Amino acid sequence: MNSPMGPKPNRTRQNDPAGFRTRVLDVAANLFQTHGYHATSIKDVMQATDVSGGALHHHFPSKKQLALAVIQDRVAPAVRQTWIAPVLSASSLEKGIAAVFREIIAGLESRGSVAGCPLNNLALELSLSDPDFRGAINAVFDEWQAAFAQRIAATRGGTRLDRAKRMDAAAFIVSVYSGAMTLAKSAQSTSPLRAAATVLSRWLRERDFS
Amino acid sequence: MNSPMGPKPNRTRQNDPAGFRTRVLDVAANLFQTHGYHATSIKDVMQATDVSGGALHHHFPSKKQLALAVIQDRVAPAVRQTWIAPVLSASSLEKGIAAVFREIIAGLESRGSVAGCPLNNLALELSLSDPDFRGAINAVFDEWQAAFAQRIAATRGGTRLDRAKRMDAAAFIVSVYSGAMTLAKSAQSTSPLRAAATVLSRWLRERDFS
Repeated sequence: MNSPMGPKPNRTRQNDPAGFRTRVLDVAANLFQTHGYHATSIKDVMQATDVSGGALHHHFPSKKQLALAVIQDRVAPAVRQTWIAPVLSASSLEKGIAAVFREIIAGLESRGSVAGCPLNNLALELSLSDPDFRGAINAVFDEWQAAFAQRIAATRGGTRLDRAKRMDAAAFIVSVYSGAMTLAKSAQSTSPLRAAATVLSRWLRERDFS
Repeated sequence: MNSPMGPKPNRTRQNDPAGFRTRVLDVAANLFQTHGYHATSIKDVMQATDVSGGALHHHFPSKKQLALAVIQDRVAPAVRQTWIAPVLSASSLEKGIAAVFREIIAGLESRGSVAGCPLNNLALELSLSDPDFRGAINAVFDEWQAAFAQRIAATRGGTRLDRAKRMDAAAFIVSVYSGAMTLAKSAQSTSPLRAAATVLSRWLRERDFS
């Protein structure tokens, strides 16, 4: 860890704990997203952030603690910002969902690769093996579905459904996106997302969810 | 590796290479499915199968080779057996898909846990990082979608669609299942699969895919 050029200047930024936390969470979220949780080591996070093991350990006593913080402070806000807020504020549920799909597809195409939905990725890697991860991940899926069910209730078609049917429809929409992103990641192509968006838009109009 | 009781009797079954391969692939498929690829070590496979590192290495020179064999010889046949064959042979596409969902849900409920779709799990863990894995995984998704598109072409609604629209519909169906399984794994509940099956059945009937 010692540089041959002598000690580095205050690289852990102890005087800026919020900045430190932000930087570590950004880097860890990105590593978990592109490589997965198990394929990312604490050493990878240290190297990518240039922080010491001691400083990292002080803020995040374990890799699991770090990942739980990533879910809560990076993945959940990303779902809120990408999906929940635009759909809740859209003039039409169908138009709101179509716009989010378009934005996601455009973003992937400008990046040129599909790393997948961070929630999906962590869900499949960690939900079975660890109840703490499962609870954290499921809370995000629940919030997402509840928001869609709420937005469905405000549509003409939604007023004709009981609460259970609105929840089914919300789960269906999240499932379509989630699965299409899995296919898109496998194919490293946005085609499955385009297919899903087209079919889903028509379904939403037919259900009077527009 | 030496037992204090002396050498074990021919535990690698060198006289039965097909049996050896079957056993290793079964165990590895199960470990990758429940823990993931990165969280499973070659040592885990050795311990669970009680084979030596040398014998394992002789058949599968690397963990990657082993995982590629699992995809080709366990995951792909599972998709064919669970989804493709029943749907192709069903009297109605909608009834065939509903029956597969019912069977999967019943299986999960009798097991009491949701390990997820093995193809999904490996797709999200490995598709981005490795082109060999991506090719192997994507081939399975392609075969699955092509079979559904073929079955859609044989329905009344399907005859009214061009090839691209049939492929979109096939990708949509696979996406719905794949995403619903991700939600089911996160919630450790079959509810998202039930919701998806209900909504999808109605969609298939409305599209005249029954």
